[in-house]
Amino acid sequence: MKRRNILGLAGAGAAGIAAAGAVTVRRRDEPATDPGAALPFYGAHQAGIVTPAQDRLHFVAFDVITRTREDLVSMLEAWTAAAARMTAGRDAGTHGAVGGVPEAPPDDTGEAIGLPASGLTLTIGFGPGLFRDADGRDRFGIADRRPDALAELPRFPGDALDPAISGGDICVQACAHDPQVAVHAIRNLARIGMGVVSVRWSQLGFGRTSSTSAGQPTPRNLFGFKDGTANLKAEEASALDEHLWVHAGDGPDWMTGGSYLVTRKIRMIIETWDRTSLREQEAIVGRTKGDGAPLTGAAEFDEPDLAAAGPDGLPVIATDAHVRLAHPSAHGGARLLRRGYNYVDGSDGLGRLDAGLFFIAYQRDPRRQFIPVQTALARRDALNEYIRHVSSAIFACPPGLPAADDFWGRSLFS
Amino acid sequence: MKRRNILGLAGAGAAGIAAAGAVTVRRRDEPATDPGAALPFYGAHQAGIVTPAQDRLHFVAFDVITRTREDLVSMLEAWTAAAARMTAGRDAGTHGAVGGVPEAPPDDTGEAIGLPASGLTLTIGFGPGLFRDADGRDRFGIADRRPDALAELPRFPGDALDPAISGGDICVQACAHDPQVAVHAIRNLARIGMGVVSVRWSQLGFGRTSSTSAGQPTPRNLFGFKDGTANLKAEEASALDEHLWVHAGDGPDWMTGGSYLVTRKIRMIIETWDRTSLREQEAIVGRTKGDGAPLTGAAEFDEPDLAAAGPDGLPVIATDAHVRLAHPSAHGGARLLRRGYNYVDGSDGLGRLDAGLFFIAYQRDPRRQFIPVQTALARRDALNEYIRHVSSAIFACPPGLPAADDFWGRSLFS
Repeated sequence: MKRRNILGLAGAGAAGIAAAGAVTVRRRDEPATDPGAALPFYGAHQAGIVTPAQDRLHFVAFDVITRTREDLVSMLEAWTAAAARMTAGRDAGTHGAVGGVPEAPPDDTGEAIGLPASGLTLTIGFGPGLFRDADGRDRFGIADRRPDALAELPRFPGDALDPAISGGDICVQACAHDPQVAVHAIRNLARIGMGVVSVRWSQLGFGRTSSTSAGQPTPRNLFGFKDGTANLKAEEASALDEHLWVHAGDGPDWMTGGSYLVTRKIRMIIETWDRTSLREQEAIVGRTKGDGAPLTGAAEFDEPDLAAAGPDGLPVIATDAHVRLAHPSAHGGARLLRRGYNYVDGSDGLGRLDAGLFFIAYQRDPRRQFIPVQTALARRDALNEYIRHVSSAIFACPPGLPAADDFWGRSLFS
Repeated sequence: MKRRNILGLAGAGAAGIAAAGAVTVRRRDEPATDPGAALPFYGAHQAGIVTPAQDRLHFVAFDVITRTREDLVSMLEAWTAAAARMTAGRDAGTHGAVGGVPEAPPDDTGEAIGLPASGLTLTIGFGPGLFRDADGRDRFGIADRRPDALAELPRFPGDALDPAISGGDICVQACAHDPQVAVHAIRNLARIGMGVVSVRWSQLGFGRTSSTSAGQPTPRNLFGFKDGTANLKAEEASALDEHLWVHAGDGPDWMTGGSYLVTRKIRMIIETWDRTSLREQEAIVGRTKGDGAPLTGAAEFDEPDLAAAGPDGLPVIATDAHVRLAHPSAHGGARLLRRGYNYVDGSDGLGRLDAGLFFIAYQRDPRRQFIPVQTALARRDALNEYIRHVSSAIFACPPGLPAADDFWGRSLFS
């Protein structure tokens, strides 16, 4: 049953319903879109990577608790069917929240009845532990298929990671313009996976801190600065090919067309930052707060002049400024596709907001991209005084599914 | 400086910018509104009570840490000025995030630059501890002004309250159609209050679980059921007068035109609920899942027939069904204005989503409204197997401010 049939609208086309239904809070300088609409689930690459960043995130990492390969593969098949349905704005299962027999649990949880697809994307990734667990066991007979690029990240200086909210065997990134739709999707996958997987950790996020399309204005992080000005954009086809997608020959065939995902939960020490002067904030970032222009330029997209010196002979952009240390020129041209979200998890019991950035980055090879960039930042970034990395994870996200008879993980497990 | 002036739009009227800027994800059966627009801050009653429920919540409870009445009053004056500015879509302070002198911290944190007012409302309330603290001290010389209706709630059967996320001396409810706008507002109030107040706890919420206007469809909670069908609505003028607003003579004059606020964080045991049959779920609630109709009726707004018996002679709506126990007829006609939000706080470390309902209810007198209703529910409600009340608080929300020379708490402190 379609999610909407319950409300008696079975005759109307999904697109028509969505168009009538929904748009989202957007900046007034952002082009009109239809955030209620459904996005395609099938394609050469997974959705949710170069898809223009939606407003809300529910990210989940699962531990696999079954020891049986067949159970795991069956669940991935069931997940794929449910994901295809939910991203189209339908119920997770064919009987919906009120169908089937009254004596059985519903096969959808119901809280999204009447809500449009809301641009939902679901993106899956496999963690290193799926290939060989912490005890070295090859639980599912796939240890020899682990890409070399999919290794646990090194420990970076200053890391304050909580293992309970780090790692995971499988992740799903749900993005949508309505948080109830994103939460509904993750919850139904968890329900379908009962006995096979268990939620290890999950994270809600809001507001885009990275724009992934040239049509989107650069949003602001909770430091109040524009974040992601130099991000890879969906329109840069040759750069995506070079920096984002895994090529044939990069590693095992099953990852060709996929991408590696690194997540970092970066707590911001909001109250200390808010007591810092504007001049100091701008020196730390290397950009102005209002326009986001580099301190050597006048407009946001001006290229930072890292060689420029001021009247005092010192660099205009400080040697420990964030924009300098993260700049591709410092890392052999390495770039990332960032897709992070702001988060607020309440307060921390010490009178401070528990808030920051849930950093998400996709890339062709973390050994040449995230790891060297983060190594440089962790050593020297002036921002480090105001942030703590509290969770970390890495996943291999396989390519997209070309057609409806395929399923998440088929290329890995067959 | 206006929040938007930074982007060079000082010449455009706020309403025009907002209208160009924003609408929100809404159900397709919901009338079009303009969620980017600013709502009035001044009025006989505080905004954020009968205001049609916005999509997002950031609720905060503060401990007052100063011992000085003058510091507290000064902060309330500064808060009021900032609240009036922010609800109009402006910066928290007159110099904004990039104004003033570069050597000083900005007087706005900047993350809402470029975002419209987004229907932001800020609603303040005073807790019992402001009048007399846990040690019995009258810190601010107002102990004799505490309304009798503002007393700590009794312990209800089954309560599993965490003191760290309960109570508080002052609360602020921020509601908006954009979470970044709601979070920005609370953060700036906390910043302004530094040294006077400290964040005790805060809660994010999304999706409306109660409609407060006849023009809004009834939303669904995370059990998948419509929630708040029988809620007080903004259009019911005489019922609001009877059940919502404090009358002259009800207690101290400073609360006339105000309302009492009860919050309860209600964790839902999602995974257990999702394994329950549809028939059982509907029997527990007393309504159908699809339409929200009472089990004795055909449509959502049909009045439940609590006397109806089935062919087996048993009541159609069970004696422990939620709709029966919460029905006004069981409590001398008592009704509440509910304004709750769904929440997901990640997972709980045991593989379960940490999710549920952040219940918010406004009323004229909790002794005749929330307390008897919750007493009946806590004793017998069949839903109790699937929920845990983990936080609780009560606040006295004073009347609205009639004009710009007034401030939050003036009637209490003068």
